[in-house]
This record gives sequence, structure tokens and C-alpha cells, in this order.
Amino acid sequence: MKRPTIADVARRAGVSKGAVSYALNGQPGVSEATRQRILAIAAEIGFRPSSAARALSGATAKAVGLALCRPARILGIEPFFMELISGVEAELSARSYALTLQVVSDQEAEIAVYRRWWAERRVDGVLVCDLRTDDRRVPALEELQLPAVVIGGPGHTGGLASVWSDDAAALVETVEYLVALGHRRIARVGGLPSLLHTEIRTEAFTGVCRRLGLDEATTVWSDYTGEEGARATRRLLSSAGRPTAVIYDNDVMAIAGLSVAQEMGLTVPGDLSIVAWDDSPLCRLVHPPLTALGRDIPAYGAHAARQLLAVIAGEPAAVVQDETAHLTPRGSTAPPRTTAR
Amino acid sequence: MKRPTIADVARRAGVSKGAVSYALNGQPGVSEATRQRILAIAAEIGFRPSSAARALSGATAKAVGLALCRPARILGIEPFFMELISGVEAELSARSYALTLQVVSDQEAEIAVYRRWWAERRVDGVLVCDLRTDDRRVPALEELQLPAVVIGGPGHTGGLASVWSDDAAALVETVEYLVALGHRRIARVGGLPSLLHTEIRTEAFTGVCRRLGLDEATTVWSDYTGEEGARATRRLLSSAGRPTAVIYDNDVMAIAGLSVAQEMGLTVPGDLSIVAWDDSPLCRLVHPPLTALGRDIPAYGAHAARQLLAVIAGEPAAVVQDETAHLTPRGSTAPPRTTAR
Repeated sequence: MKRPTIADVARRAGVSKGAVSYALNGQPGVSEATRQRILAIAAEIGFRPSSAARALSGATAKAVGLALCRPARILGIEPFFMELISGVEAELSARSYALTLQVVSDQEAEIAVYRRWWAERRVDGVLVCDLRTDDRRVPALEELQLPAVVIGGPGHTGGLASVWSDDAAALVETVEYLVALGHRRIARVGGLPSLLHTEIRTEAFTGVCRRLGLDEATTVWSDYTGEEGARATRRLLSSAGRPTAVIYDNDVMAIAGLSVAQEMGLTVPGDLSIVAWDDSPLCRLVHPPLTALGRDIPAYGAHAARQLLAVIAGEPAAVVQDETAHLTPRGSTAPPRTTAR
Repeated sequence: MKRPTIADVARRAGVSKGAVSYALNGQPGVSEATRQRILAIAAEIGFRPSSAARALSGATAKAVGLALCRPARILGIEPFFMELISGVEAELSARSYALTLQVVSDQEAEIAVYRRWWAERRVDGVLVCDLRTDDRRVPALEELQLPAVVIGGPGHTGGLASVWSDDAAALVETVEYLVALGHRRIARVGGLPSLLHTEIRTEAFTGVCRRLGLDEATTVWSDYTGEEGARATRRLLSSAGRPTAVIYDNDVMAIAGLSVAQEMGLTVPGDLSIVAWDDSPLCRLVHPPLTALGRDIPAYGAHAARQLLAVIAGEPAAVVQDETAHLTPRGSTAPPRTTAR
């Protein structure tokens, strides 16, 4: 497929190439209605002025886009995203780049935002979160030729640059630690099953439980909210062979799990050990403080931002591994008080 | 003082008015070095192209700026800001406006960001958070003539538009409720004392305690983090006439206070009643769930965004009162078990 040119846009819109240029650069010389029509046609046929032409015209946006596909309420409660954003932002502002933020309802809306941002030159590149196993955003971004860095992986990122962390290794370390303490019935409350990193963790969890000879490896999926984390915990703790240890895919669900244990009259860590993923300050707020898997999330964001600026500058797309989360044992894990019944 | 014109910028820079126009609009025709010099001079003398000229040239940024002067770690843990941002963002994206975010280290840095955003036409207006009693940003924004809405008040907003909530009324309601339950020794863990809303709450707290004939009205100031909230709580609970109820200026400190009570062997609500300000989902995560003062923060953000778009469109700056926080009693408040000693 031939790459669309400015002439293609001009022909479809029935205007001169100069008018298209004015419209795309936000310069006077075309009416607002015509400008909107030209932008729509450019977006529709996927026209993208070359980076060289952009750089020559001085029309870089000096901004980076981040579209987040999570309900506002979840974004508000989970420290992960704000920590990530603060790291991204610190790196960008040191280079006089702005961060443009948008909350979207689904992947289609997110792709539409990317098209608009790129057509209107609002951003020079984007950071992509919440990678899925079969992610429509990856081919869409490749087609747009919009500079991008995927925060996630490994794999499933096509030809795009990415930065990832080894969740499988972190989960294996956690299960081995719990087994060393004497736990044999370990369950997991996972995040959204459609996300790649949830799948990676589930596979690693099942694998290590089998390798260590545990009888079962139960994962209950949830949506990162406290409500669902509490519900999943009640279900696990009401089952016949209830677990003596639960690993949660985020901090918010782990704290909800701790409350459910207290509400059901179980002591933590005596009757139940709890491990949280994402060692945010929330984990140290509760009593007992939570054993957690953590890493420097602002640094992860800064890392992704640096990589995106390199891609924008024309460097080849690289796949870079970031720090692996490490386990910090606190008061919520101990040897199980009771042996299996 | 005469308002600076494009001719003043051209004269100082030693270039033509056309060159200044090119530079300000990011159009080709001037070198990058010259563009930077012109932008610096324009910022220095406070030159601002009129809204009409901007509108005529079609050079609106279609973006709104939000600079946050809080350490990244605090932004990450407090749901308030992400909820506010999600509300702002929902309103903006419905009108095809982008949100540009920047974390700044202090008020001087924040003012410098406003100057740069406005000179480079990166934003059409800004939302201002964390209002102080003697806030240097207010006169700076008035001088820049940058459209702005202050999220905070009442008062201290000069001629700027603002949206505010009646914290004094909410605090009075809370103290009256605790006194009705039988509490006589009520303390408060406040936020940063330099913020206007902290001062308003402190004054209201002192006033209502005096009016209801309580012996004292202790406020300990903190910085919204769990660490400081825990420290303040330990201090209060170790004092001779320890309080039977504590009101916290945010949710994170209230949760830390609950943990400290548990760690010190006090039961909540038997020995200690706890009230949190900002009824985020965190308050319902812990056991017992926290009685909290809440209101719809995303709606507050959306309200501020709508008001800013009106100011950008040329409507006069208004001072608008938003919903007052209301008290939701949950398991963390009850009549005190012991009477005063």
C-alpha cells in the first residue's frame, strides 16, 4: 500500500496542496470549516507529513500523549498510574516537553484519539499502557507511523519500541518464598484477564505451583477495585480447602482482602498470609503492613519517556527490560498456623 | 502601565513584527535560535496577543493546562487529584480540548510554566489548585491575562474566576455530629497549614468547639502522607487527655490513624472515633470502614473545566460555589466508651 501524500489529501478535499498545509499547520488562509474537512480527510486516509518535513517546518508539538483506558474511579484509587505519570512528566518537563492526557472508554476510542492527535500535530509520540495479548492498538500505531513506546510485554508489541518488567520472575520468587514459609494452599486474586501481564502472571503462577508440587493453583480474576478484591477474597476464604496465603495483583485489592479477613475473624498473618503487588505507600498504611512486590514506578515512567524521546528523535525502536519487582516481607506474611485439614 | 504590543517585542528583539508573529505561531521564517530569543523577550515583557487576534489566526491551542505543585509520591497516593483530573478531562475531551499536565516544585516554577505555556500558545487557559492565603500565582495570572479558574476559596482569588466548596460548613456539621454522639475531646489532624482551605477548616474547627463549650480544640498539622498522619496520631493518642475522636484532613492520614489505633491496642470506634475528609473508595477498603466527609470530586473537576472554557470564550470571571461535602457515617464513629477522666 502506497503511503498517502499531501497531494492525495488535496485531491480528495478539492483544494490546493498549500491549503492542506495551512490547515494542517493551523495557519490562517483556510476557513475553519475547510480546515476541519481537510483534517478529517487526512485522518481518514492516514496521511502523515514526514518527520523531516515536520522538523523542517519547526512544527513539532513538543508534547507527548498518554491515553488511559480505565474508568475514572479506578484511576483515582490506584497509585500506580499517578506514580507512572509523575515519572513520565519529570523526564518530559526536563526536556521542555508537555504531557497531554486523555481518558478513553475503549481501544477504538483510544485509536481514534491517536489519529486525531497525530493529524492535528498535538503530540510527537505516545506512551501505550495496558497491553493486551491481541492488541489492536499495535497495528494501528504502526500504520499511523506515530512514534510510540509500549509500557508492557515482553512480546506482542509488533515493531514498536517497548519497556517491560519480568512479572513472571517476580511471581515465582513470591510463591517460592511462601512455600519456604510452609504454605501449601496458595491462591491468587488476579487483575483483568484480558491484559497481557495478567496472563503472564497466571501462567507463571500455575507453572511454579506445579513445579513445587502444590495440589492446586487457584486464580480468581478481578478488576483491581476494592469491591471486587473483597468479593474474590470472601469466595476464597469461604471455600472448603481455603488458602493459607493469597497473592493480589494490586495493592488496593490486597488491602480489601485484609479487611475481609478481619471481618471474617481470621488473623493476618496467623490464619492468612497476604502479598500485594505494587508496593505503594498504601501497603504501609494498614495494620499489619503488607508484604509486597515493588519496584520504582516513577523511574519506570521516566525510562519509558526517555525511550519515547529517542524514538521521536529518529532512533530505532528498541525493546528494553526494566528492573524486576522485588519482594519486601512485612507483617502480613508468616508460616501458616494450622496445617492442612 | 501600557500593555506591551507586538511592536515592543520586535523592537527589543531587533526583528520585524512579521518575524515575531512567525516565532509566536511556530511558523517557518525564523531560525530556532531567533524564535527562542523572541519567545523569551515576549515572556519577559509580558506580551500577549489579544484573544481576538488569536481567534482570527485560528491559533488557539485547544488545550488547558494544569500544573500541580505536589511531590510525585503524594500525588500517587491521594485519590483526590486523579479524581479531579478525570472529571476535568471528561469535560474537556467532550469539547475536543486536551489536558496538559505538569508537576512543578514550587510556586515560582509554576508561574514560570504559566508564562511559557502562554507565550508558546500551548494552552488557552489554566486550572489553579492548592490556593494559599497570600498566593503569588493570582497576581501573576492577572498580569499575564491568561484565562484561569482557581479551584478553591472563597476569597483570595483576586479578579480570577473560581469554584469553591464550603469546607467550614462541612467541618461544623462533623463536630456537631461527634458532640451529639457524646464526644467532648475532639482533635484534628490538618493538612498543610500554608493552604487556604486548611486555614478555613482550622478556623471553623476552633470556632465550633468554642461555641459548643468543648474544653479544647487541638489541631496537629501534617502533610497529607500516611507517615505524618501516623506520627500525628501517635502524638495525640499518647497525650494525657487523649481525644476520643479525631478528624483527618484526608483519607490517607485517616487510614494511617486507624492503623496506629490498632497498633496501640485501641479499638475503633469503641476507644476512638475516626472521621476522614475526602470520601474516596479507600475509606471503604479498611475495617471498620471509615465515616467520611465526601462529595463528587470528578463533578467538581468537570465544573471547573466548564467554567474555564466559558472564561476562554470571553465570558466574565465568576465565583461559583460547588456542592458542600456531606458526612456519611460508617463503622468508625460511635459514642465514646469511656467518659472523660
